[in-house]
Amino acid sequence: MRNINVTIAYDGTNYHGFQRQTDNLPTVQQVLEKILTDLTKYPVCALGAGRTDAGVHAEGQVINFRTESNIPVGRIVLAMNQRLPEDIVAKKAEEVEFDFHAQFSAKSKVYRYHIFNSRLPSAFDRLYSYHVPQKLSLEKMKEAAGYIVGEHDFTAFRASASKAKTSIRNVLRLDIESKPPHLFLTVEADGFLYNMVRIIAGTLVYVGRGKITPEEVRHFIESGQREEAGPTVPPQGLCLMEVKY
Amino acid sequence: MRNINVTIAYDGTNYHGFQRQTDNLPTVQQVLEKILTDLTKYPVCALGAGRTDAGVHAEGQVINFRTESNIPVGRIVLAMNQRLPEDIVAKKAEEVEFDFHAQFSAKSKVYRYHIFNSRLPSAFDRLYSYHVPQKLSLEKMKEAAGYIVGEHDFTAFRASASKAKTSIRNVLRLDIESKPPHLFLTVEADGFLYNMVRIIAGTLVYVGRGKITPEEVRHFIESGQREEAGPTVPPQGLCLMEVKY
Repeated sequence: MRNINVTIAYDGTNYHGFQRQTDNLPTVQQVLEKILTDLTKYPVCALGAGRTDAGVHAEGQVINFRTESNIPVGRIVLAMNQRLPEDIVAKKAEEVEFDFHAQFSAKSKVYRYHIFNSRLPSAFDRLYSYHVPQKLSLEKMKEAAGYIVGEHDFTAFRASASKAKTSIRNVLRLDIESKPPHLFLTVEADGFLYNMVRIIAGTLVYVGRGKITPEEVRHFIESGQREEAGPTVPPQGLCLMEVKY
Repeated sequence: MRNINVTIAYDGTNYHGFQRQTDNLPTVQQVLEKILTDLTKYPVCALGAGRTDAGVHAEGQVINFRTESNIPVGRIVLAMNQRLPEDIVAKKAEEVEFDFHAQFSAKSKVYRYHIFNSRLPSAFDRLYSYHVPQKLSLEKMKEAAGYIVGEHDFTAFRASASKAKTSIRNVLRLDIESKPPHLFLTVEADGFLYNMVRIIAGTLVYVGRGKITPEEVRHFIESGQREEAGPTVPPQGLCLMEVKY
């Protein structure tokens, strides 16, 4: 029995998220398990590092699966890409220790939120970004980001549906990169609560628009009241960039 | 009666090209005429500067239409975008001289061809680029591009379906910009034969791969035999960037 991890990129537009659904809607995991089962001739259960939501993308999702197959690891990427639809791409495959687990072995994950900041929308980036027509203050957004970085109770930045036992997370970095008309928020943390990145992005957009102050963001972190932070911005701006082990 | 021109961007993925079709397949022109007729309350015929093919995109297509409506020109962009689907965006509207014609008044057009040059395909750029996994010699491609620039008989670079009376065109520039893994070919000419940019791009890819030499490209230009130039590369890499008047 071998344990294999594969780095995957996907355009989430046409999927109901990463995770297999009980109601049989198309998901990335379902596609991967189907083609890996076909490829290895053994039923495959492909666990993912992050359960991205419907419409969320990935440049560096990581999955692992255990298999009796002796397919050479160097052949896996090519063989997968021959079978995968064009919106899912296998990038790298490695044989790993038997106890490696894509989700639980992860030390940190890096997500990027893409804001298209222009008066007019874009015909091209609409499926890969969130259109914000208002002027944004980069300076204020960076100030607020400074309060978010660090180990905090992120109750104010979790969706009500979140089932996590603790809401303490360590945000290792939160970078704001401006390449007009694009704005990229890159968040790395040891773990994320449900919708946490999208609520952080929504809060920073509100700060940029002047609807809330950086000081208030510091207060949200301290108070832990979900209602106070900004809105949950749409899924298509979000991309899982990297999982670190 | 007024004559109005509008600059348009569109993602061509879901359209059967720009031009209205007799068989009622969805086209960009059809959508524009429908919403402009709705907006101005008069039947609109929206002529385009370039008849982009199915799957080809535009950042700067220009249309013009004549209308009895007295809608203020400053309201047109917003009013159009409220009615347009997300994959078509109006960018600018101007009132122009009555004899202005989007196609015939154009002095030159600028097209860009996007090559995704990487061993693995991209899950994101697949609808907006052409994937070339082989290594490409930029130096040789630039040398060949030098032979294409200028006024020549482009018979070797026209599709057999082309109906143009003369195949003499003036290529004003052909720039090759490398931003790995992306490669952008930008071609400006006073006019284009049917599939000319896609055949130029296909020829340059063959030069980059070493399948034909820059010297042979010079020969294609001189000989005027279509069979000798490179293949017609796929439509999704092509984008009409700008029309100059």
